[in-house]
Amino acid sequence: IAANDGGRVCELAGDLHESDVGDLIENLEPDDRPKLIELLGKEFDFAALTEVDETVRVRLLEELPSATIVEGVRELDSDDAVYILEDLDEAERARILDQLPAPDRVALTRSLDFPEESAGRRMQTAFVATPPFWTVGHVIDHIADTPGLPETFYEVFVIDPAFKLLGSVKLDRLLRTRRSTLMRDILEELPRTVRATDDQEQAARLFERYNLVSAAVVDDADRLVGVLMVDDILDVIEEEADEDLRALGGVTGDEEISDTVLYTARSRIPWLLVNLCTAFFSASVIGLFEGTIEHMVALAVLMPIVASMGGNAGTQTMTVAVRALATRDLGGHNARRLVRREALVGLANGVTLALLVGLTAGTWFENPELGVIIGTAMVVNLVCAGLFGILIPLTLDKLKADPAVASGVFLTTVTDTVGFFAFLGLAAWWFNLH
Amino acid sequence: IAANDGGRVCELAGDLHESDVGDLIENLEPDDRPKLIELLGKEFDFAALTEVDETVRVRLLEELPSATIVEGVRELDSDDAVYILEDLDEAERARILDQLPAPDRVALTRSLDFPEESAGRRMQTAFVATPPFWTVGHVIDHIADTPGLPETFYEVFVIDPAFKLLGSVKLDRLLRTRRSTLMRDILEELPRTVRATDDQEQAARLFERYNLVSAAVVDDADRLVGVLMVDDILDVIEEEADEDLRALGGVTGDEEISDTVLYTARSRIPWLLVNLCTAFFSASVIGLFEGTIEHMVALAVLMPIVASMGGNAGTQTMTVAVRALATRDLGGHNARRLVRREALVGLANGVTLALLVGLTAGTWFENPELGVIIGTAMVVNLVCAGLFGILIPLTLDKLKADPAVASGVFLTTVTDTVGFFAFLGLAAWWFNLH
Repeated sequence: IAANDGGRVCELAGDLHESDVGDLIENLEPDDRPKLIELLGKEFDFAALTEVDETVRVRLLEELPSATIVEGVRELDSDDAVYILEDLDEAERARILDQLPAPDRVALTRSLDFPEESAGRRMQTAFVATPPFWTVGHVIDHIADTPGLPETFYEVFVIDPAFKLLGSVKLDRLLRTRRSTLMRDILEELPRTVRATDDQEQAARLFERYNLVSAAVVDDADRLVGVLMVDDILDVIEEEADEDLRALGGVTGDEEISDTVLYTARSRIPWLLVNLCTAFFSASVIGLFEGTIEHMVALAVLMPIVASMGGNAGTQTMTVAVRALATRDLGGHNARRLVRREALVGLANGVTLALLVGLTAGTWFENPELGVIIGTAMVVNLVCAGLFGILIPLTLDKLKADPAVASGVFLTTVTDTVGFFAFLGLAAWWFNLH
Repeated sequence: IAANDGGRVCELAGDLHESDVGDLIENLEPDDRPKLIELLGKEFDFAALTEVDETVRVRLLEELPSATIVEGVRELDSDDAVYILEDLDEAERARILDQLPAPDRVALTRSLDFPEESAGRRMQTAFVATPPFWTVGHVIDHIADTPGLPETFYEVFVIDPAFKLLGSVKLDRLLRTRRSTLMRDILEELPRTVRATDDQEQAARLFERYNLVSAAVVDDADRLVGVLMVDDILDVIEEEADEDLRALGGVTGDEEISDTVLYTARSRIPWLLVNLCTAFFSASVIGLFEGTIEHMVALAVLMPIVASMGGNAGTQTMTVAVRALATRDLGGHNARRLVRREALVGLANGVTLALLVGLTAGTWFENPELGVIIGTAMVVNLVCAGLFGILIPLTLDKLKADPAVASGVFLTTVTDTVGFFAFLGLAAWWFNLH
């Protein structure tokens, strides 16, 4: 298709939704991507670029002529435009901003001045606002008669002459109210506005909590500067959940499915190196008991069981704790109770597992004392796993570090070390082997 | 406060948003919860119950008199009512449904007939629909004059006399169109409707993909039966991401932070038992090499390093694969390429780690040959980890099992077994130790 038949391409791809065009772009060979966009010409909606992976987008933007980008960005809602511009390097971004009409340029520059991942970056700068003394009829007529209103909006904001936000009226409310009513009388006050400098995750929690579809964004002087839309928030929620999940799985950074082997390998190795150090540390704990193992090889066979069960139980606790911290369900008010709960859960499951492991191991090696020792080590390790599984994320959170990223390494270090030490140490002492 | 001063309680809690009331309920002592609701009386919005943990909700509903629940449920949007009723047992649910007015009863029963976690369960059964031949002005007047329209709506659906969905008109579109225009001429066709029997996750992907705020739900005959709202979808997205994350962390079931020690311990033990079996399996692999270890204890010290690095690398791959499967980024079209990529990433990182581990281990035990052996085992295990890290979730997905739940067990079994076997086997062969 991309063999230069513009008309045919337009016909096939022109009517697709931006998300579908995004998919189409991702599935093309890299060289065909800019061609597709040029062939589509005016038919190409730059919003499709917000739907593709970052790696694909950055490369594509590098290959497109500036003029095409300028043209495309002009057509976009400000939040989508910011999304695309933030990936460009400084110089290229400045060049494109210079070619935009002044009002667009000012709005975009202001958004880009907010920190990354802030509400200010995600907001749309165009919104519908009226003074409080307008009537509902006046507002309805105004909306009908004014071209150039934002593409989508769900509420009309009411502001005073200084742009200070007084409240908002949802469109369904507007339609259900008699035309003579004043906006002042039907506005809902918004105790929960988003500040432009707020983190996008904070804004997302607000949407979830109060079931919003859009939210006013105000600056430090409480002046209305933009509006956040729920569709952007949906992406934020998905992104943040994804980040936690990847972090727990040891995948940091922004790896994407379209990355190359080399890029992926490089982005995953730091985590493996950190784990290598802790693995050597646990190995050195085993090294302390070389003499013991030499006398009783069964210990070497059984010791990974103690360590890995501790790791599994600890990971359960840690997963719950990390997620509860992210959704603010876990905090100062219930931390003490939950730490106690996790220790007791560890104890309860530790005893159950100890009985099973003790019996099996004792029978396997025809040595009941060995069964008692592995059982005891199991209880010790599971209680530690429960305690550290919640204390580590709590501490990291208190230190303002992301608990999802680093908890895992610390936790397995603890469960491996405690597991090996408790089991081998007890055995050395009981059987008097050195 | 809950010492029976109704007026004061209403004053304090009456104006709160339903989410805040929900938090308040969760933080009260269990015995005070029904008291609060009775004291609030008419002021209590049952929607608050949709915001509390399931355990709390179920217990609270058991303690409240049926009459209060009937009264409360009547006031709710149908989706919230379903959310509350689905937690009750059959008999209690039937009793409450019987006391509701007939139209409400029919709508709720129909929703409850759809399978759990389906779009039909989450949808609101009240919506605004017009025939195609109405004018915009007529619709606007109709909305203004009709009491009892749903509390919130973002679009007006256009249907034919048989209730078949023709399309929809968003409220902002409606407001911007001249009053004399026919609905038929401005309706947007909806190629993407949700079927009532669709899984809620499927519906959520649609919202995300096409940036929707509400979506029509149709039955098998394409008749409009309800509407899904983005705020419910927000919860679905969060829930599904949460489920994946917990499943990967070995926390299955619906454990909540308010559960008791016993309940939590019981819900976590099945997973630990499964892992115990696999741990014994890997231990038995080590058992094959007891003689080898007896001759060279250094092997026991080093073997956990090989196994755990394989586990870590495999988990990275698995995390990415599980998430990509959930978001439909991974599928038949790119599976082959990604399996190849993961194997190569495993190879690349395996070689890097092998060099480091080989050097360190060789120096530590003053035995360069041992360094070569552990390095080789490391490369083998990391390639396997990459391969199985993606093949296991892919296979489970093909077998219609949830890849997030079971991938972890299979994967660690593979990486432990391969790790121990490769390392000990190579050592036994090379040093000729049996």
